[in-house]
Amino acid sequence: MGNDGRNKTEHVSLQNVGAVNFFCNYEESRGNYLVDVDGNRMLDIYTQISSIPIGYNHPALLKLMTNPNNLSTFVNRPALGILPPENFPEKITETLLSVAPSGMTRVQTMACGSCSNENAFKSIFIWYKNKERGQNKPSEEELSTCMINQGPGCPDLSILSFMGGFHGRTMGCLATTHSKVIHKLDIPSFDWPVAPFPRLKYPLEEFTRENAQEEARCLEEVEDLIVKWRQKRKPVAGIIIEPIQAEGGDNHASPDFFRSLRNIARKHGCAFHVDEIQTGGGCTGKFWAHEHWGMDDPADIVSFSKKLLSGGYYQKDELQADKPYRIFNTWMGDPSKNLFLAEVLNVIRRENLLEEVTRSGKALLNGLYEMQAQYPGLLSRARGQGTFCAIDLCDTATRDRLLLQARDKGVHLGGCGDVSIRFRPALVFKEYHVHIFLNIFNDLLAQNK
Amino acid sequence: MGNDGRNKTEHVSLQNVGAVNFFCNYEESRGNYLVDVDGNRMLDIYTQISSIPIGYNHPALLKLMTNPNNLSTFVNRPALGILPPENFPEKITETLLSVAPSGMTRVQTMACGSCSNENAFKSIFIWYKNKERGQNKPSEEELSTCMINQGPGCPDLSILSFMGGFHGRTMGCLATTHSKVIHKLDIPSFDWPVAPFPRLKYPLEEFTRENAQEEARCLEEVEDLIVKWRQKRKPVAGIIIEPIQAEGGDNHASPDFFRSLRNIARKHGCAFHVDEIQTGGGCTGKFWAHEHWGMDDPADIVSFSKKLLSGGYYQKDELQADKPYRIFNTWMGDPSKNLFLAEVLNVIRRENLLEEVTRSGKALLNGLYEMQAQYPGLLSRARGQGTFCAIDLCDTATRDRLLLQARDKGVHLGGCGDVSIRFRPALVFKEYHVHIFLNIFNDLLAQNK
Repeated sequence: MGNDGRNKTEHVSLQNVGAVNFFCNYEESRGNYLVDVDGNRMLDIYTQISSIPIGYNHPALLKLMTNPNNLSTFVNRPALGILPPENFPEKITETLLSVAPSGMTRVQTMACGSCSNENAFKSIFIWYKNKERGQNKPSEEELSTCMINQGPGCPDLSILSFMGGFHGRTMGCLATTHSKVIHKLDIPSFDWPVAPFPRLKYPLEEFTRENAQEEARCLEEVEDLIVKWRQKRKPVAGIIIEPIQAEGGDNHASPDFFRSLRNIARKHGCAFHVDEIQTGGGCTGKFWAHEHWGMDDPADIVSFSKKLLSGGYYQKDELQADKPYRIFNTWMGDPSKNLFLAEVLNVIRRENLLEEVTRSGKALLNGLYEMQAQYPGLLSRARGQGTFCAIDLCDTATRDRLLLQARDKGVHLGGCGDVSIRFRPALVFKEYHVHIFLNIFNDLLAQNK
Repeated sequence: MGNDGRNKTEHVSLQNVGAVNFFCNYEESRGNYLVDVDGNRMLDIYTQISSIPIGYNHPALLKLMTNPNNLSTFVNRPALGILPPENFPEKITETLLSVAPSGMTRVQTMACGSCSNENAFKSIFIWYKNKERGQNKPSEEELSTCMINQGPGCPDLSILSFMGGFHGRTMGCLATTHSKVIHKLDIPSFDWPVAPFPRLKYPLEEFTRENAQEEARCLEEVEDLIVKWRQKRKPVAGIIIEPIQAEGGDNHASPDFFRSLRNIARKHGCAFHVDEIQTGGGCTGKFWAHEHWGMDDPADIVSFSKKLLSGGYYQKDELQADKPYRIFNTWMGDPSKNLFLAEVLNVIRRENLLEEVTRSGKALLNGLYEMQAQYPGLLSRARGQGTFCAIDLCDTATRDRLLLQARDKGVHLGGCGDVSIRFRPALVFKEYHVHIFLNIFNDLLAQNK
């Protein structure tokens, strides 16, 4: 990878590039294959941290670019909150609202995942305070103290989150993120409660009793924390959770766990915020991972980004801020990303990609089961839903070495947690791609045995 | 505006639309003229909250869209932090680094203004703690406590900001924003110090003595707050300020004030963060408003967004985070916006737009001076730098009425503060546009006298 070194040196003077894996040739990348700067072609099972929905240079997306009617949307980025384009309501109806989670008819667009969660939190706080106030207006004291960051205007409300959760890195989001030290160290935070996320045994169906006990323990702790924080006068206004903890190590919980948690939120008057930024968009075999819970009323607020190409959140009517400009910023999303999303949704429907994901996911998970049976010293805890799969290595060093070796063999993968590999292919990842990967992975494991 | 009502009703079910002014036809908008959904053509002196650098549908930007070599950049959005495109270092060098503020050779791209300031704050906190630590590694206690939002791992550091300042609305940014109650009420915040921003008398050259006194008072208060917060064990790691407070009412301060403030920051070991999100990009007649201060070392960190089409911040070498993944997110900007920025910068240079802005700005400010002399009961405090101008009306109701009347006469304007109109034209706003505006404004004032 000759040019790689040169580019990286040059790049070093510009940005913080310790994290750069390699430079890419996106022009030459196609479908599931990412091409690097030296022309190496890799099966991409990480897809830009799970943010490429239908592969590289999909013809439907390229075609959209050549339609002269679309040019203006790229060239003139509006301040969506005050001056939306004529067709924006229709565009949102045919894109984001056509895949709205159960019970939700409202969506607020944002430009990225962090801004989505930050503004969802703000909607929760506003809703919570308005609920407390009832018909009363904010007091003079609230109006004056909020301007200098003090209570009661800036109240001591909290969001309950889970150990191992990841919800972004801006300061509000970061206060609910608990996956790695490197994200959190040295950054001031809020005294918000952190509950344990169940540490389940896999495969889930073999450990139902133990896992149910572990989930019950965590749920009990959640209720204890809600009570404790109420007593501390920092009441829990909302609970945020991922349907599958991703960055934190691909940790699953049962539909029962989420149903109980949703009930606890309801019981204690906390908004239930499901963060689908990584799980949303089809990779679990359903468009939203929370659909696997089988609930009519799964959440009060659902945030998204990544595969949906820009960010935002769905919310119930009552979560809608009561006044304009309470939830606002200059761009509030990007209509040009919505143009792409419309095509992505068309392709998902036309090509039945959710079924495809279910099929490929089964093949992938079965392959991982077989391999962990074959290499019990190296592999454990294979798990997944759809193609949103993961497996643990015996230690961090082996995991990291394997990721590099896989790249040399033409497979690009990502890690998560301390010892896990996470699989995050695009929705166009077919069964035959699974087998290409499994063959290569098998060779690598034999080599590392 | 017949369709406007229908669109707004439909839109109401989707988003929080109380703030929507009207729906736009961006295809038909050209240069300084914004066209609404009913074909009304308006001289746009607000430009999507100051975020359209060279007008609508600029031919240079449209042309860029038809170049097949650019398609891939739009269609394949990378995770810039790990897999940048081959040409990204060159692109950044020819765009953002070619306009880097004095003393800065590093830039970190981000997707929006709020994310830019949030991550700049994080860089400041990391820098500050590393300075304290010297050669020592973070302690075990720091590593464990940071995961649950507690000190010492999440330290009680603060950012000093100014009353009337606006730095965004995500929770870190919002703790430094103090312009309007509607932004702040009900959102938990940090106990961070808020200093008074000078309330100067205009025109500045007529009140130099009074203004110098007022600035000295504010600077003294800044030092007092730094000492007080150090005693409270919430030391000030950074100071953030806008070169001209925008959202807070277009409040100016003298170059002397900023020079002294920069020295105070240096003296107390605080990073000096200049927020150029609204002032940057040429609208003051220089590319960065802080260039008017005439300093070699104006800041430690400078954030931008809006007219630069995506966000980010420049920083000094020592502000660069010491490890990868401390400043990170999925997208970290958007290379497709950089393609546009390259063209914008070409146009600015080719057409000498900074000189144009200076010329138009002079004509605008002189016109405003004349009008406030003519209508002293209605207008006061005309002020500005380049075309970044503002004027106060006698009260909020009159200001709001005038904004609506101006729109009916074909001029789109924005408000700021309680009683101000802010002028935020594109860089292609020429002297003859100034005169078109002044004529219309004059008619409106006569009508409102």
